[in-house]
Amino acid sequence: MDFQHSHSDNPHTSAIHPPEKHRIQESNLNYSNEPIPTRSLSNYIVHCHTPLNAEPQLPLLVNSGQITPADVFFKRNHGPIPDITLDNHKVFIGVQQNPQYYFNAESPAVEWKQLSMHDIMTKWPKATITASLQCAGNRRDGLAAVKEVKGVIWGAGTTSTAVWSGPRLCDVLKDVAGVSSDMLDEMIRDFHVSFEADDHVHEDVCYGSSIPLRKAMDPAGDVILAYEMNGKPLSRDHGFPLRVIVPGFIGARSVKYLQQILIQPQESMSFFQRRDYKILPPWVDHDNVDQSWDTAASLTEMNIQCVICTPTEKEVVASSKPVTIKGYAIAGGGRAVYRVEISTDGGDTWEPVDKMEQRPDKKSGMYWAWALWEKTVPRMNKSTEIIARAYDSSGNVQPEFPIWNYRGVMNNAWSRVHTLPVLQYHM
Amino acid sequence: MDFQHSHSDNPHTSAIHPPEKHRIQESNLNYSNEPIPTRSLSNYIVHCHTPLNAEPQLPLLVNSGQITPADVFFKRNHGPIPDITLDNHKVFIGVQQNPQYYFNAESPAVEWKQLSMHDIMTKWPKATITASLQCAGNRRDGLAAVKEVKGVIWGAGTTSTAVWSGPRLCDVLKDVAGVSSDMLDEMIRDFHVSFEADDHVHEDVCYGSSIPLRKAMDPAGDVILAYEMNGKPLSRDHGFPLRVIVPGFIGARSVKYLQQILIQPQESMSFFQRRDYKILPPWVDHDNVDQSWDTAASLTEMNIQCVICTPTEKEVVASSKPVTIKGYAIAGGGRAVYRVEISTDGGDTWEPVDKMEQRPDKKSGMYWAWALWEKTVPRMNKSTEIIARAYDSSGNVQPEFPIWNYRGVMNNAWSRVHTLPVLQYHM
Repeated sequence: MDFQHSHSDNPHTSAIHPPEKHRIQESNLNYSNEPIPTRSLSNYIVHCHTPLNAEPQLPLLVNSGQITPADVFFKRNHGPIPDITLDNHKVFIGVQQNPQYYFNAESPAVEWKQLSMHDIMTKWPKATITASLQCAGNRRDGLAAVKEVKGVIWGAGTTSTAVWSGPRLCDVLKDVAGVSSDMLDEMIRDFHVSFEADDHVHEDVCYGSSIPLRKAMDPAGDVILAYEMNGKPLSRDHGFPLRVIVPGFIGARSVKYLQQILIQPQESMSFFQRRDYKILPPWVDHDNVDQSWDTAASLTEMNIQCVICTPTEKEVVASSKPVTIKGYAIAGGGRAVYRVEISTDGGDTWEPVDKMEQRPDKKSGMYWAWALWEKTVPRMNKSTEIIARAYDSSGNVQPEFPIWNYRGVMNNAWSRVHTLPVLQYHM
Repeated sequence: MDFQHSHSDNPHTSAIHPPEKHRIQESNLNYSNEPIPTRSLSNYIVHCHTPLNAEPQLPLLVNSGQITPADVFFKRNHGPIPDITLDNHKVFIGVQQNPQYYFNAESPAVEWKQLSMHDIMTKWPKATITASLQCAGNRRDGLAAVKEVKGVIWGAGTTSTAVWSGPRLCDVLKDVAGVSSDMLDEMIRDFHVSFEADDHVHEDVCYGSSIPLRKAMDPAGDVILAYEMNGKPLSRDHGFPLRVIVPGFIGARSVKYLQQILIQPQESMSFFQRRDYKILPPWVDHDNVDQSWDTAASLTEMNIQCVICTPTEKEVVASSKPVTIKGYAIAGGGRAVYRVEISTDGGDTWEPVDKMEQRPDKKSGMYWAWALWEKTVPRMNKSTEIIARAYDSSGNVQPEFPIWNYRGVMNNAWSRVHTLPVLQYHM
């Protein structure tokens, strides 16, 4: 397949390159063209409108079922929603073998190729993957309660699950970037695939991130370039016209508004790869953060997580009736949720949940989608702490208490809610 | 390559099949031919001689360096050490597509092929992998301290690291079992590769175990059939003449004395796959264990682990000198050790280690081998609890306290030792 000339009569490949990008000051970001008419936020707790950062109410999230509707799925943005035209959008794909490139943006070393959305939607088989995305900052509120953190103070609603469709990244890279098995053999250890968005943010020239080439090229890694979510074209809020879906990884790697894919010998130089989304050590805070970023690796896979979604914290429940507890659990890297356990006595004893459903990918068998679980416990006639914890299939378990870190990421402490039983409460 | 006739003139493949096996009562197992003359146990804490179960002293383990010598590497057995002759040993390889086989041992459905050790040592490239093995029962003593458990009461010495050499299992299965990429596509989700040893145990007809076909066939999974350990032929204690090495998985899957490899549509029926090596729920104990086995999945990858090896528990240290703490950390599934943290104030504050080294596989880049770390802390003039904890690259962290389970597996609680400082202690 020959993509490089598909939208150009110019036989010189050097004529193809991604548009130049410039960093924009936060105060100059333009939020006048947000997709307001198509955006209902009634299902959400909105933490910020510019950029839009909103998570669903937890009972709604878990009651929406295995597949989260697009208007319940959490919305995480770093800048204005770009207004991209399907017909005009191009995706640039290249291979960079020389790390020096990063210090010389004019380097001609990358031979870019470009794809139209039509190419992306027609030239490869359409794969469909059901995958949960989870923001690394999910449950940041639990760490903020320990000590001040930097970031949107998310609750536990930035985990959602959708059905994503589009070509497999490994197929696209084989054909367009010419990644052969010999080449892969050489590059698998050290190379990464970086993604850049066609957007504006104030922290960098655009949103960007990367994943190891190993993940990108693994047929069972199930990384896709998604143009559909739950059977419909992506909405602008969710990345129209194209986003990466990197199942098993923190949501930050599933770059929206995808414009550029570059295979390179190191991870992305983006702010969002190098200066964000890391578990900084507990001895790092505002005063010494600048010199600490390079001491921690960039996050990739999610850790084992389990959250009670209903009842909610301090929810009033009828003391005369049993209480049904519902929640989700998710492990990273395609690992299964091994077990969810519930305690109503402060962790002294534990009980199984009544039911739990987690569906592996029908082809790869990997567990990219969350487990939804529920348990009904006898009526509570006093205020009770309900605790849930989960293990993943590798025997990892959630820690009992939150472990604070400056960026407030990856909080996966045991989930706890306290009920307020009321006599003769009318449900 | 044609293996099936390599040691037979019989053109009928049905003539090749593994030897029949019979279960032997525990009291009838024959321990008269243990490799006593070649076995020095002076480096070990011996928990049991028949079968031999022995772990190294922790300071010796960590001071032996990145690669553990064979006579320091932990020794875990379930029965007598078989006395196998290199020239006569055969390895049988087959594909079983029909689950009904398991209820009819006479089924002709498997077309077995056989390999001699000469075949295994010459017909494929020799891969060399540095990998840690860790018994799932490592640190069982910490769970036994909570409540009675079943199993050898191991300390933290059943983690060791060696350089293993032999053909890649994926290469062997492609050639001998005819696993094509189309076939793999069909089977990757549900199939397993089971291994059986040429030995006798009392729990089953032989030691056996299995791994998902996905792991076996993943070129970056680095599963090998090892005939060398640290550059020398395997010793009898470590699996002579051939063992599987499944890096990133619990040690129980790295079957020694390998005699049989079978691709099959479900995991091994062996006792050691189905009735052992599972994290049973905390509500399961001796009284209800029988009906509980099938409620928990078989263990595969290791969890995040970190252990202080020196000083040892209640070690007397000079109060006039700084103390150097050394230990190991290892994550499962090829994940890196993200960070090790030390606390000497009960977990209120944490400090970095002074150095840590973990080497990824030179080809796949996966972290199969442990990280060794050390930290020197100021002199201690009172009894001090030193705590170490680690995170893996997926953001999983060790739990603060042991979580008891009946089989006492996968204990990865924070590691704690208490020093006893003595004034003017002469080192």
